[in-house]
Amino acid sequence: MENIIFDFISRYITLTESEEKEFMKLNTFKSFRKGTLLLKEGELSDKCYFILKGCLRSFYIIDGEEKTTEFYTELEGINPHCVVDKKPSRHYIACVEDCILTIGTPEMEAVMFEKFPKFEILFRKLSEELLAKSQTSFDDYKTSSPEQRYLNLQKSRPDLIQRVPQYQLASFLGIKPPSLSRIRARILEKEKS
Amino acid sequence: MENIIFDFISRYITLTESEEKEFMKLNTFKSFRKGTLLLKEGELSDKCYFILKGCLRSFYIIDGEEKTTEFYTELEGINPHCVVDKKPSRHYIACVEDCILTIGTPEMEAVMFEKFPKFEILFRKLSEELLAKSQTSFDDYKTSSPEQRYLNLQKSRPDLIQRVPQYQLASFLGIKPPSLSRIRARILEKEKS
Repeated sequence: MENIIFDFISRYITLTESEEKEFMKLNTFKSFRKGTLLLKEGELSDKCYFILKGCLRSFYIIDGEEKTTEFYTELEGINPHCVVDKKPSRHYIACVEDCILTIGTPEMEAVMFEKFPKFEILFRKLSEELLAKSQTSFDDYKTSSPEQRYLNLQKSRPDLIQRVPQYQLASFLGIKPPSLSRIRARILEKEKS
Repeated sequence: MENIIFDFISRYITLTESEEKEFMKLNTFKSFRKGTLLLKEGELSDKCYFILKGCLRSFYIIDGEEKTTEFYTELEGINPHCVVDKKPSRHYIACVEDCILTIGTPEMEAVMFEKFPKFEILFRKLSEELLAKSQTSFDDYKTSSPEQRYLNLQKSRPDLIQRVPQYQLASFLGIKPPSLSRIRARILEKEKS
């Protein structure tokens, strides 16, 4: 697992061997079983996650109904907005699969920034990238029909379609499961003709 | 204008007087007339903006129709995703009002980070905040009806409703102008009764 994280970090900054060792001492790797709830509505949390293996899902419960807003997979990070806002969470985060995660808190970040100021650069670049990605996804969602959203997903995150339950995928696309079935049938029909 | 920007920066980091002077030498303030297009579809740009006065709008043109995806007002920053992705822009950015902006580029950032490493901290914190905001907005959009979206906007950004043309506001809420009129009438009716 160390190799995965250090390969990832090396895309942004260069760590020396001793820095890598120091980082490992922070012991941030944790395993979670499929179905584990990492965050609940109303909870005050200070934890952010980076996924080494597995899939996480963010969802809201509104009028008793789950609304899936995001999926996160390998080499993606989540800094839940309640951590930044310091307010109780309005949503849930659950493990869709067995997961291996790196967990951080603002306190650990402070220690890291103190020890390795270059982590400021890493976190700035990561946040900028995540922001650009979040904005693009939001824009795509606003400017696309549900069918286009599905086609975009097929192109940009084909693995997701196989990995997550269909009712969660439908909710993520802003539609009901029967509509997702119809969209799929329509696309299959077009591909055949 | 300097005071506005230094007051804002002081929320995140402390600058000395000489650092403030150095910053002013970068001469990043620019004025733009209402209607100016700062970014066009297909353009490669390296400019990010911070709004000292005025209102900017991000929009797409899809099948000849404008789709407004975001408004930005005083003390908000925009790092268009094309700048991070280094790909041609897929959207437009226009001045909804006369604007005074601070403009940055990755080159200027690099100079600033070199001169004042603490700007790394500022930019990291800003990006983290913007990311949390973008995610919250996206989640709200996905989990709300158009009427709820309007009510949320009334609460969170009441000025916007007065400042921007109604067809742009409707598009931003994901509806047609007649639907916006109906929503408003319905809310007014409820407030009366």
